[in-house]
Amino acid sequence: MKALGLIVEYNPFHNGHAYHLQASKEKTKADVVICVMSGYFLQRGEPALMPRRERTLMALQGGADLVVELPYIFSSQHASWFAKGAVSVLHHLDADVLCFGSEHGDIQPFLDVLAFLQTNDKIYNQYIKEFIYEGYSYPKAVSLAFLKLEPEKDWPDLTQPNNILGYHYIQAVHDLKSSIKPETIRRTKAGYHDQHISEKSIASATSIRRSLIDQGEKPGDIGHTIPVPTRILMETYLKKQASFFDWEQYFPLLQAKTLTLSPSYLEQIYEAEEGLEHRFQSFIKTHDSFQSFMSALKTKRYTWTRLQRLAVQTLTGTTKTEANEALLTSQADHIRILGMNKTGQSYLNRIKKHVDIPLITNLPKQKTPQQKLDERAALAYYSPLPPNKRNTKWKEEYQLPPVFFS
Amino acid sequence: MKALGLIVEYNPFHNGHAYHLQASKEKTKADVVICVMSGYFLQRGEPALMPRRERTLMALQGGADLVVELPYIFSSQHASWFAKGAVSVLHHLDADVLCFGSEHGDIQPFLDVLAFLQTNDKIYNQYIKEFIYEGYSYPKAVSLAFLKLEPEKDWPDLTQPNNILGYHYIQAVHDLKSSIKPETIRRTKAGYHDQHISEKSIASATSIRRSLIDQGEKPGDIGHTIPVPTRILMETYLKKQASFFDWEQYFPLLQAKTLTLSPSYLEQIYEAEEGLEHRFQSFIKTHDSFQSFMSALKTKRYTWTRLQRLAVQTLTGTTKTEANEALLTSQADHIRILGMNKTGQSYLNRIKKHVDIPLITNLPKQKTPQQKLDERAALAYYSPLPPNKRNTKWKEEYQLPPVFFS
Repeated sequence: MKALGLIVEYNPFHNGHAYHLQASKEKTKADVVICVMSGYFLQRGEPALMPRRERTLMALQGGADLVVELPYIFSSQHASWFAKGAVSVLHHLDADVLCFGSEHGDIQPFLDVLAFLQTNDKIYNQYIKEFIYEGYSYPKAVSLAFLKLEPEKDWPDLTQPNNILGYHYIQAVHDLKSSIKPETIRRTKAGYHDQHISEKSIASATSIRRSLIDQGEKPGDIGHTIPVPTRILMETYLKKQASFFDWEQYFPLLQAKTLTLSPSYLEQIYEAEEGLEHRFQSFIKTHDSFQSFMSALKTKRYTWTRLQRLAVQTLTGTTKTEANEALLTSQADHIRILGMNKTGQSYLNRIKKHVDIPLITNLPKQKTPQQKLDERAALAYYSPLPPNKRNTKWKEEYQLPPVFFS
Repeated sequence: MKALGLIVEYNPFHNGHAYHLQASKEKTKADVVICVMSGYFLQRGEPALMPRRERTLMALQGGADLVVELPYIFSSQHASWFAKGAVSVLHHLDADVLCFGSEHGDIQPFLDVLAFLQTNDKIYNQYIKEFIYEGYSYPKAVSLAFLKLEPEKDWPDLTQPNNILGYHYIQAVHDLKSSIKPETIRRTKAGYHDQHISEKSIASATSIRRSLIDQGEKPGDIGHTIPVPTRILMETYLKKQASFFDWEQYFPLLQAKTLTLSPSYLEQIYEAEEGLEHRFQSFIKTHDSFQSFMSALKTKRYTWTRLQRLAVQTLTGTTKTEANEALLTSQADHIRILGMNKTGQSYLNRIKKHVDIPLITNLPKQKTPQQKLDERAALAYYSPLPPNKRNTKWKEEYQLPPVFFS
């Protein structure tokens, strides 16, 4: 059984994801599709629209055979840690190939970047420093450094977020000495390759979330950008839960919590650096929405994403000590199975004896450093709900079996 | 000008308080009445029904001439610290006499207790230990120790909360080497002394709060137990604020905050001892009201009050280090003026040059250790309000002048 690994957030699962999943499977001639999915808080420092369970079902409906969780400590991180965590999960699950979406679409230039940096890292880092000193942003500095080093070459544009992630996936595969073979599929113009998905039917997850949350649209309004089962699932979810999770719902707690922490604890929060935490604490007092708080806090140096990640770490109370302990091996310290179909199940049965980190379906009593933080992320994630509903959701963390999709 | 000091919570101001204030003034022939009032969180570890400002006005309407704040670090504490803080404020304000309500009603036995303990503390402490070992509660052990030491003497019953407070006031006066003269007035049967207040018109603040909060009664329903201006003030307050503050409103935040703190921080919280914080954290996850959480948490060893105080310290995030720093001198490190009338104002003008700790009307930018915690208490106190209302209340902390009552 050839196993294809995908690294996903599915927030929510949309036509672009459906296309990527199917095209990757065809390109790699895989028999089983494994998705490593972020649980509660996502790479840009945002709460997921919907809990893991709903997004797991979307993935299975969309063609995934096995869905496992990316531990919290990797999920709300910059590209490098995010990639290390996700790739390590796929590596431990014996994935044969990893196929990521990229703006570039060709794997060779990514491999060239890696090879190039192996030998030129000193001068490269020197250039980065110089460009940043000249006032360029980090991604722009990266891009300029490559052009300066070898102007003739067709480098992937590393200012593009998916190219950056892709590069870090390849680096993580290399660092792990994994036998996973990296592949990529071009993200844009996805519509060209499939008659059933018109150009208009591909929208970014960001724009879909904006429609749903900021503009208060219903899943039906964005129905042309998501598969039918996803739309039905979202509609059913909304009937029970009234609304999707978004940062504004966390703001009252984030504000009250931030203002009632000892500065000595705030300094210990992971991602709190260079006095940023004091600015964070002093600014939050005068704002009454997350949006206005972040707009005021943002600077050239501290991007929106960087600040959102600090907000996530504050919400979960994750300290530097806890994060460092959880990141010690640079790998996942367990794999939590979120869902599967029959194919996924037989794959799992085949490999599970060889998996050398704990394969779990629920959080155990004795927790690994990453599991401790996974639990806190779950506790924080459901905190906008009233206590009786929170408690039900928290109980499910320990009781519900993985989703089985037949 | 003879100055009488009273130590009060006024939660809310009721007929018993009105009687105590007038009777104390008559008994001591004082010209000015100074009230040291707890701000946000009270001695039994509860949020005040109404903010300081409203309770300050009640006090002035009820006959107080000057109202100052008991700093947070003393206000939610066991009797000994509470007394040290409150008495030190009166001492710095040059009070001539302190008159407290007691179940006993005669000052001499309290002075005898103090004198007795000065010489017999070793054997007394030994007895306390033995009685606690035998399974008696601390107040009962105190009472039994006295009886055992000198069975013939008419000791004040130190299992009665107001007698305990009274004893600690006297001890604090003694420890400070203050010239304040302690006096007491009997609390019970207060109705006997004043024809205008029938027995029925005296109810404890606890029973009044229970009527207002648990039974949802209106200020009019308990109108016979509170002065008319207090009732009008409460009715006006409710028109603007919809409800009084009580623990249940804090529960969603307390639960979410407690569960999303690193255990290493929770251990640092003031009053978190002997692993109590882990029990606190693990119990709170499965309850959906403060009442049910506390009922489950309570043991013979950990009384309701003790646990509520831990909840207050968790809510304000006060660490042991911060508390120890704030308690270093065992005295108030500033006096915050909350309100006054003309008499209070002239008294203040007369003494203010001699007051040797900062006399403030608003929190300054550079804060003393106690002021830092006062600010956090204010932030925590208003946290049940939605962010826009919180922000207004927090701003007032820095902007509103003291209440002037003419």
